[in-house]
Amino acid sequence: MFLNDDFLLSTDTARTLFHQHAKDMPIIDYHCHLDPKEIYENKHFRNLTEAWLSGDHYKWRLMRANGIPESHITGDASDYDKFMAWAVTVPKTVGNPLYSWTHLELRRFFGIHEQLNEESAPRIWEEVNAKLATSAFQRRNIIKNANVRIVCTTDDPADSLEYHQLLKKEEQDFQVLPAFRPDKALDIDAPGFTDWLRRLEQATGKEILSYASLVDILQQRVNFFHEQGCRLSDHALDILRYQAGDSEAVEKIFAKRLAGVELSQEEISIYRTELLSTLIGFYHEKDWTMQLHLHAYRNNNTPMFNRLGPDTGYDGLNDLPLTGSLSQLLDRAESGPGLPKTILYSLNPNDYPSLLALMGCYQKDTPGKLQLGSGWWYNDTRNGMRQQLTLFADNSLLAHFVGMLTDSRSFLSYTRHEYFRRVLCELIGEWTERGEAPDDMELLGQMVEGIAYHNASVYFRFQSAD
Amino acid sequence: MFLNDDFLLSTDTARTLFHQHAKDMPIIDYHCHLDPKEIYENKHFRNLTEAWLSGDHYKWRLMRANGIPESHITGDASDYDKFMAWAVTVPKTVGNPLYSWTHLELRRFFGIHEQLNEESAPRIWEEVNAKLATSAFQRRNIIKNANVRIVCTTDDPADSLEYHQLLKKEEQDFQVLPAFRPDKALDIDAPGFTDWLRRLEQATGKEILSYASLVDILQQRVNFFHEQGCRLSDHALDILRYQAGDSEAVEKIFAKRLAGVELSQEEISIYRTELLSTLIGFYHEKDWTMQLHLHAYRNNNTPMFNRLGPDTGYDGLNDLPLTGSLSQLLDRAESGPGLPKTILYSLNPNDYPSLLALMGCYQKDTPGKLQLGSGWWYNDTRNGMRQQLTLFADNSLLAHFVGMLTDSRSFLSYTRHEYFRRVLCELIGEWTERGEAPDDMELLGQMVEGIAYHNASVYFRFQSAD
Amino acid sequence: MFLNDDFLLSTDTARTLFHQHAKDMPIIDYHCHLDPKEIYENKHFRNLTEAWLSGDHYKWRLMRANGIPESHITGDASDYDKFMAWAVTVPKTVGNPLYSWTHLELRRFFGIHEQLNEESAPRIWEEVNAKLATSAFQRRNIIKNANVRIVCTTDDPADSLEYHQLLKKEEQDFQVLPAFRPDKALDIDAPGFTDWLRRLEQATGKEILSYASLVDILQQRVNFFHEQGCRLSDHALDILRYQAGDSEAVEKIFAKRLAGVELSQEEISIYRTELLSTLIGFYHEKDWTMQLHLHAYRNNNTPMFNRLGPDTGYDGLNDLPLTGSLSQLLDRAESGPGLPKTILYSLNPNDYPSLLALMGCYQKDTPGKLQLGSGWWYNDTRNGMRQQLTLFADNSLLAHFVGMLTDSRSFLSYTRHEYFRRVLCELIGEWTERGEAPDDMELLGQMVEGIAYHNASVYFRFQSAD
Repeated sequence: MFLNDDFLLSTDTARTLFHQHAKDMPIIDYHCHLDPKEIYENKHFRNLTEAWLSGDHYKWRLMRANGIPESHITGDASDYDKFMAWAVTVPKTVGNPLYSWTHLELRRFFGIHEQLNEESAPRIWEEVNAKLATSAFQRRNIIKNANVRIVCTTDDPADSLEYHQLLKKEEQDFQVLPAFRPDKALDIDAPGFTDWLRRLEQATGKEILSYASLVDILQQRVNFFHEQGCRLSDHALDILRYQAGDSEAVEKIFAKRLAGVELSQEEISIYRTELLSTLIGFYHEKDWTMQLHLHAYRNNNTPMFNRLGPDTGYDGLNDLPLTGSLSQLLDRAESGPGLPKTILYSLNPNDYPSLLALMGCYQKDTPGKLQLGSGWWYNDTRNGMRQQLTLFADNSLLAHFVGMLTDSRSFLSYTRHEYFRRVLCELIGEWTERGEAPDDMELLGQMVEGIAYHNASVYFRFQSAD
Repeated sequence: MFLNDDFLLSTDTARTLFHQHAKDMPIIDYHCHLDPKEIYENKHFRNLTEAWLSGDHYKWRLMRANGIPESHITGDASDYDKFMAWAVTVPKTVGNPLYSWTHLELRRFFGIHEQLNEESAPRIWEEVNAKLATSAFQRRNIIKNANVRIVCTTDDPADSLEYHQLLKKEEQDFQVLPAFRPDKALDIDAPGFTDWLRRLEQATGKEILSYASLVDILQQRVNFFHEQGCRLSDHALDILRYQAGDSEAVEKIFAKRLAGVELSQEEISIYRTELLSTLIGFYHEKDWTMQLHLHAYRNNNTPMFNRLGPDTGYDGLNDLPLTGSLSQLLDRAESGPGLPKTILYSLNPNDYPSLLALMGCYQKDTPGKLQLGSGWWYNDTRNGMRQQLTLFADNSLLAHFVGMLTDSRSFLSYTRHEYFRRVLCELIGEWTERGEAPDDMELLGQMVEGIAYHNASVYFRFQSAD
Repeated sequence: MFLNDDFLLSTDTARTLFHQHAKDMPIIDYHCHLDPKEIYENKHFRNLTEAWLSGDHYKWRLMRANGIPESHITGDASDYDKFMAWAVTVPKTVGNPLYSWTHLELRRFFGIHEQLNEESAPRIWEEVNAKLATSAFQRRNIIKNANVRIVCTTDDPADSLEYHQLLKKEEQDFQVLPAFRPDKALDIDAPGFTDWLRRLEQATGKEILSYASLVDILQQRVNFFHEQGCRLSDHALDILRYQAGDSEAVEKIFAKRLAGVELSQEEISIYRTELLSTLIGFYHEKDWTMQLHLHAYRNNNTPMFNRLGPDTGYDGLNDLPLTGSLSQLLDRAESGPGLPKTILYSLNPNDYPSLLALMGCYQKDTPGKLQLGSGWWYNDTRNGMRQQLTLFADNSLLAHFVGMLTDSRSFLSYTRHEYFRRVLCELIGEWTERGEAPDDMELLGQMVEGIAYHNASVYFRFQSAD
């Protein structure tokens, strides 16, 4: 059975849904962390270590849990030795999604069907590296061959989007669209905040002397991103503390920060609440989709943070109450300019019930206007996906779900869409098997095709996505 | 398989348990929101829209999530157009319990076996409306034909209970008993608090000049409800903040409120804690069952609240810690006059483990004295029921569970008892299949019959329920 | 099927893994509450009530939930009457793990295959008591016959460990090792704190006049425990409030406590944080494993606490946020002397996702250095085990898991290892069945043998465990 044609599919309904309705649908990867420059330049990977292990903190965490020394993870060991360190780890990952993902990528991209372990590693290293050197494995061809139509990257308001523009001209087979992620604008307490303001000034040629001028520039950047095809924004809200303040108060807080005065927790919360509420208005006006990524708890290992910086595998998750602040934030938008389409992701799966109950309070006009995002990060597992899908279906209309995204830094992660589609078809098959859903393959097939592809196309309103 | 005789039942044990032990048991619906006046008056429904869509905010939420305009939900569209709006939504609800409930109601009440959708809707509209016009579908006949023996409504201390009294005289086939829900007495910070005090004065002919006089009157209302057959109380504790205070402090708080002075959060908490503790004493004295409905988070959409008021589909759930305050409340009762039989419901399923662990600390004398209530509201799903049943069984004695209730405003929701009984029998079937429970159909059959009917009858001590 | 050879095992893979790889592995019970004196003295149980019902608050809670009077639980009823009270309760426990455990113990230890109930109870009482009187059921023979190699008890720093020393000399078939549990050193606000300091002074012959001297003595006790074979420490952290303070501040707090002054919440937190951080340094230095038992919420029933004291079945669980404080505690160790091997248990299963995410931030050097502990207490159920194993596998390397422990006060609880191993093999069988894990019985068999036995042996570094 291992990763064969019918893996994860235990019923006839599930198998039919997958093979006839899910498998061949194109992919809209509406949220990922691929580098547009890297896509544009379209280089070969120098070897499997570059393709798999550079920047993939999912794998790094498991290698550390396997006792692999840091030299062989992020350090100066050779590419081959790093690959071998991962190969030794893989047999220990049975039960973890990386065991499936690793072998799925070996099969689907490279036609390699053996298990990766210390013994097979040298053979696989040679075989994969040879393939990576062919044109089929240039960055853009990987995307194309994975049947991807649209990729949305994650971009700072200060970014020039030059590579998106170049790709628009030169790449016919798929679109690479920017997504607006103004975390640096909101993180007023970050050490790099004023440096970031400088970058934004340089990108726009305008001076930022006040909070009002920052808001003006962000509005212009939203317009600029929109012209480049952007239809989504994204926020990392590790902790959400709603605290309203008037514009005078926010100007004072901003001025204090520019003057180098340390801000209180309350001042930080007011600034963040007010700027976020303003941005929500911009998104609504543009008919964008707002994504909120809630409850990560970052950088818990100080020595390793000092050595490697952020996003290197040292993030936990937050277990604070959420409903109170989130309700105030969304209700304020709904009471004012209007709430945009919204996708809520939480790193803490305990938040799913409260997120779903709350988002039901703002549904209107657009089918599936508010959605619970696909199992994020540590929840990007069969178990996590089933939990997200089951609760989504229990408390809203799963038929409108915009489906899977990779959220990935890797060009080889599109097989996760296959994985997700199998989990989805299996779940629907179970409903039919139990007599909860009708054995109506037209109805169910439409539902699957929608979640796999069409819903995202309709919901995000990309230009000419179909 | 869809909703056939054996739906949700995958093993022989489950099928035998359901068909021989669960299916034909009568229903004690010990908590619902039916209007006693409506039961008494025993009218026909004018059509399926009145029967299904007036007041059913479960359906409203899904219609909103489907992008249906509010005019066709709570607005002034015609009954037919509203029904069509629901019919269009139904095919999108696959995976949601409303897909099962809707078709189960069509089958069990109206003998209609086709799927509801835009195409079938006009036919179904005609057929159902014709049946609704027959005497079999007068309110009371629906209850009777559903094999219901007892219905407990939800009543304010100021209610006269006149319709319960009339029903007692005129209805032989089932009992309609009141349940005591003094939320308005506890919500001292609500704008309508003093108006409610007036209503209570009118209902009783006594003046409320002090907290002590309010307590006296509530004691008398408990006595009066008891005489009318009431054996349950019920509280909506959206947020529980335990804060003790002496009687002098509470009198002062009450006087401030009567004088129109705004109360602090601490004062509100003291008042609520003290009055609730006093009421708990009354319930214990009468051998009533106390129901606590915890952790709803209401009215999150201000514009729609202003337009439609409460209970219209804009409620979320609370994710605050609970154990600390709840432990103090229950321990105080146990240390004082005694804790009544208690059923704890939380809208947040994350609370189940802490509720079960805590309720185990006060078990004594009565089998199953403290119980985790059946999956409430957003948890009234197959998944939610399995979670509630599994954790109840893991941490207490499921054999004493008083089982399902509809908690419904709809006369057509008794099929949820069938749904619940299937989920229950399937779960027990799985235990047997795995070798965790013996294949002893007498033991298991008794357990099922108890949970379906007998336990409630014994536990609540209704007069002549059997 | 009931408890037969293949119970809980539904696939061929699961059955092969259990029967060929799990079943016959020895047991390392690395955390339990057996009394070393009781082991050493090696007495017979006077009857099944002593063996089963004295001190087993799991059973007590269910008897209370069954309405059994306290006289027949902890009171002065006869042993026979107490046994009968349990026998009457057992049929009501279907679905609870105690139904399985009870009958598993009857089968595996006493060869009794009938169900325990009121009717069979007198027969079973006679038969079991007769067997308990034979030498095979002396305490040590029970341990030996259960294939146990190592038992780790739970010991106070003031304990003399004399029975461990005697057992080391006299018992060849298994080792009884101490584990270091300094809760009383940390509970500065407990009424018995100064009495405990006296006990520690007596045990060591040294005076404790300052915090520094307490730390010195604890360091010596760590050394002494280490010499006696101790390789684990253990802490009950019902509530974790991280609050750093300098050594001067801690000395002042300690002096205040000795002077009988009541401490503030902040002072208690500083003392606990600082002493715990110091102890963590000791554990790291000795290469011990630190166990943190988080989020119990004890003694919720004041009348019964006054009557019976702690650990009598009146404990709930804590639902406070955890990540913030725990991150600070672990990060401080990692930033300073180094974090020891750590096993995190929480009584609240909602904490599993945050614990797993956080522990991934400190993995290094030792395979599986940080682990999520086996389903603890109320989570020691099939459902709880599956949740713990699934999340462990999803977020770390389950192949390094040190596996099951009894955490028990009972000599008859080793069958829980069998139960756990079945749940584990079934889970891995499901992975294979679904095509997520390869059908590679060598790989999977090694994994099972590791979790059942070898991992604990390697990880804890007991002397001559193999």
